[in-house]
Amino acid sequence: MAEKITKRAINYSEWYNDLVIQSGLAENSAVRGCMVIKPHGWAIWENMKSILDKKFKDTGHVNASFPLLIPKSFLEQEEGHAEGFAKECAVVTHYRLKGNPDKKGKLMVDPESRLEEELIIRPTSETIIWNCYRGWIQSYRDLPILINQWANVMRWEMRTRLFLRTSEFHWQEGHTAHATQEEAVEETLKMLDVYADFMENYMAVPVIKGVKTANERFAGALDTYCVEAMMQDGKALQNGTSHFLGQNFAKAFDVKFLNKEGKLEYAWATSWGVSTRMMGALIMAHSDDDGLVIPPRLAPLHVVIVPIFKNAEQLAAISEKAQAIMLELKSLNIIVKFDDSDTAKPGWKFAEYELKGVPVRIAMGMRDVENNTVEIARRDTKEKTTVAHENLGLYIQALLENIQQSMYDKALAFRADNTFVIDTWDEFKTQVEKGGFIYAHWDGTDETEEKIKELTKATIRCIPMDAEEEAGVCVYSGKPSNKRVLFAKAY
Amino acid sequence: MAEKITKRAINYSEWYNDLVIQSGLAENSAVRGCMVIKPHGWAIWENMKSILDKKFKDTGHVNASFPLLIPKSFLEQEEGHAEGFAKECAVVTHYRLKGNPDKKGKLMVDPESRLEEELIIRPTSETIIWNCYRGWIQSYRDLPILINQWANVMRWEMRTRLFLRTSEFHWQEGHTAHATQEEAVEETLKMLDVYADFMENYMAVPVIKGVKTANERFAGALDTYCVEAMMQDGKALQNGTSHFLGQNFAKAFDVKFLNKEGKLEYAWATSWGVSTRMMGALIMAHSDDDGLVIPPRLAPLHVVIVPIFKNAEQLAAISEKAQAIMLELKSLNIIVKFDDSDTAKPGWKFAEYELKGVPVRIAMGMRDVENNTVEIARRDTKEKTTVAHENLGLYIQALLENIQQSMYDKALAFRADNTFVIDTWDEFKTQVEKGGFIYAHWDGTDETEEKIKELTKATIRCIPMDAEEEAGVCVYSGKPSNKRVLFAKAY
Repeated sequence: MAEKITKRAINYSEWYNDLVIQSGLAENSAVRGCMVIKPHGWAIWENMKSILDKKFKDTGHVNASFPLLIPKSFLEQEEGHAEGFAKECAVVTHYRLKGNPDKKGKLMVDPESRLEEELIIRPTSETIIWNCYRGWIQSYRDLPILINQWANVMRWEMRTRLFLRTSEFHWQEGHTAHATQEEAVEETLKMLDVYADFMENYMAVPVIKGVKTANERFAGALDTYCVEAMMQDGKALQNGTSHFLGQNFAKAFDVKFLNKEGKLEYAWATSWGVSTRMMGALIMAHSDDDGLVIPPRLAPLHVVIVPIFKNAEQLAAISEKAQAIMLELKSLNIIVKFDDSDTAKPGWKFAEYELKGVPVRIAMGMRDVENNTVEIARRDTKEKTTVAHENLGLYIQALLENIQQSMYDKALAFRADNTFVIDTWDEFKTQVEKGGFIYAHWDGTDETEEKIKELTKATIRCIPMDAEEEAGVCVYSGKPSNKRVLFAKAY
Repeated sequence: MAEKITKRAINYSEWYNDLVIQSGLAENSAVRGCMVIKPHGWAIWENMKSILDKKFKDTGHVNASFPLLIPKSFLEQEEGHAEGFAKECAVVTHYRLKGNPDKKGKLMVDPESRLEEELIIRPTSETIIWNCYRGWIQSYRDLPILINQWANVMRWEMRTRLFLRTSEFHWQEGHTAHATQEEAVEETLKMLDVYADFMENYMAVPVIKGVKTANERFAGALDTYCVEAMMQDGKALQNGTSHFLGQNFAKAFDVKFLNKEGKLEYAWATSWGVSTRMMGALIMAHSDDDGLVIPPRLAPLHVVIVPIFKNAEQLAAISEKAQAIMLELKSLNIIVKFDDSDTAKPGWKFAEYELKGVPVRIAMGMRDVENNTVEIARRDTKEKTTVAHENLGLYIQALLENIQQSMYDKALAFRADNTFVIDTWDEFKTQVEKGGFIYAHWDGTDETEEKIKELTKATIRCIPMDAEEEAGVCVYSGKPSNKRVLFAKAY
């Protein structure tokens, strides 16, 4: 129940953790860094998946499935990639347990089952997939290959947080192969747009599209594009990335094709992914001290009807009306539940559905039955209205759309209120302390980027795609700069 | 192309392997025993998943996600379970690689990253899930828990075959907890029925429902129910299992609840699963020497339209008609593709779509344009008919239903033709050699079951649910028996 949730103003980080657990989204498991995603959390993720999956298919992609395990030697093929991932790999070294002769009932690793070559649990699948593509690509006629995979991956994290950073996480990873650089770059940007569209129009989270600095690039990429969103504490959360990989993986795995001119060429690659981390963004962008606020387009349940009754007779009268409303709502593809359980009081139910983030609550008592009305409460603003039964379906349909839009507008206004254009180092330092997004000039060097990070903990989130040319001087070094980049503290 | 496929009569096993690879369903990967499921194969599996998922939800289940890795000590908690799975576990012992100081550019396992307790990649999730349930179940009000998980699991197999037996495979595993034995048994049987319904009405594969002998039970179960299907070589394939686990896992993980009478009791468990193995059953039950035959209800593509043209003008005329047909078919939820590519001749396309198992092919030439007709070929029987455009949508809709039913009928007739009721040991041995299902009496002992297996390679597939009481004597030992059981060689 909501009373166990720390208030945001007291401790934002504890609020997040309390909320995830109390609302039944997820919990930690007995395995360090690996979470259990509970039914309510998984239902939201399933909605995210099905919307994104349709978008991928509509843009010409197909799904496939590649092995969970990757030979260690594959990781060695692409140097940057190996450096990026080797330090956080779960390594399978044996394939059998056996009874422990010294401890009855206990198991031990059978030393005779040692693998000749160690296998790692995929942290990402570029290597195993490009090893396959070598067999699939001979001619330009085999291109493009536009494949996506929904999968679990593992990166051994030392400090984990539910959804935001876990050792095992769920994601999709697109891996495409193209005949030309141009086409691969186009694909990279197209998928970034798909992500931005999803986040803004379904998650109701406004995002800034941009390109990462060299420091922050994916291990093995030539360019990493990202979408960055602001959380309610003013920090940035990277929600998805799309990588232009050039010919790095084609070279590492020797994937050549005969082009139209009959010459052998290396294929061009992209990869792009979003993960269960988006669940963290969804929660942190919208929810409040009473619980989750879920945008209608991702909510597993749109409307709950709570009857307020004193006896079986009253419940029967309310139920009859409620059934008619349910039918009307279902005909409009609105997912609705009538909670007539007698194990909890209406007030408890109200709090429970608020905690779970159901966008619309309908309460019906005897007076409502007599007046042919219902009391409607929207989760996002907590406003209550009494509404007549007539055309209730259309009313609620419009209300759900309104909630979806309001949530986006609110998040956008919040971001605007917490975004600053800054030109001096003193102001920069002060603002980073307070939080928010900062647009400032940067001299383009690794050293300055790292120095700023070291001194303030703010990082360059991205060089925004829509950054305008503007002569200026670097906020730290004073050296010339021609555009502003986005700084923030980040998750 | 189809010419690379070994004929069934020559070598059934090679036919299967050739077909899986040539039709683009799957291939072996660089990791021993782990397959790549290619887009065509994954699309069929996605259809299976979405139909089953709806059936699970319609019967009150919800999805969730539990960790990929399981602490070794969890496996030790349930003795039978440990014995069943310890010998085939992929074991994670370390969590980091590092540069190999002796070999530049090579990686090695960092010995300092050794885990305190080894983790195994889940071969099934009873242990980690029941460890969670301990925290979720306090009272009878928390029951039942009806959870399903779609996941990848790993059992280290020494001899693997695409889809049928792979080290990594994809499946769903339902794990339910109940307040009473009765309810858990009911759940076990309900899910067996869900599986049987899916296999018969979607996969077009008739199945025999039954219970396994003690020998063949799931490790940790009190009863294992199964659905068994006959393949075209007369062998049996176990397609799905549903286990009544009693209180074994509740006791192993100390999951107790306060019952209505206020007493502490252990919870009752079931688990049930089907896997990508069903893909193997689908292929082996229906396909022929020319390629896959996929039942319409699982086909990623229902209809392909192939134009037969000599020039661009002809193609334009055919296209116009084809577009109208496509619109009509799409309005009936029929998935259709117009293949107007000019890189391949019609004959090549015909063979290709036969190989891929598209249920209906429409060919359109200039004469068809003039006559307002099309030539329709159904994949299952290869019959061709010329049909008028008028009401073509409804015609094809009925044809798809007809194909679905015919495929089932054909498989059922095949099974009937290859099922034998046998009473003597000599006949038994002869028939096992020839193949097929055998109903015979068995004395109910482990020894006889094992002896028959040793001598003939036939196993007891199940004790059929609908087996009638019938006095008889065991086909091997001559001891008394009161019902016939199902024997066959099996995958």
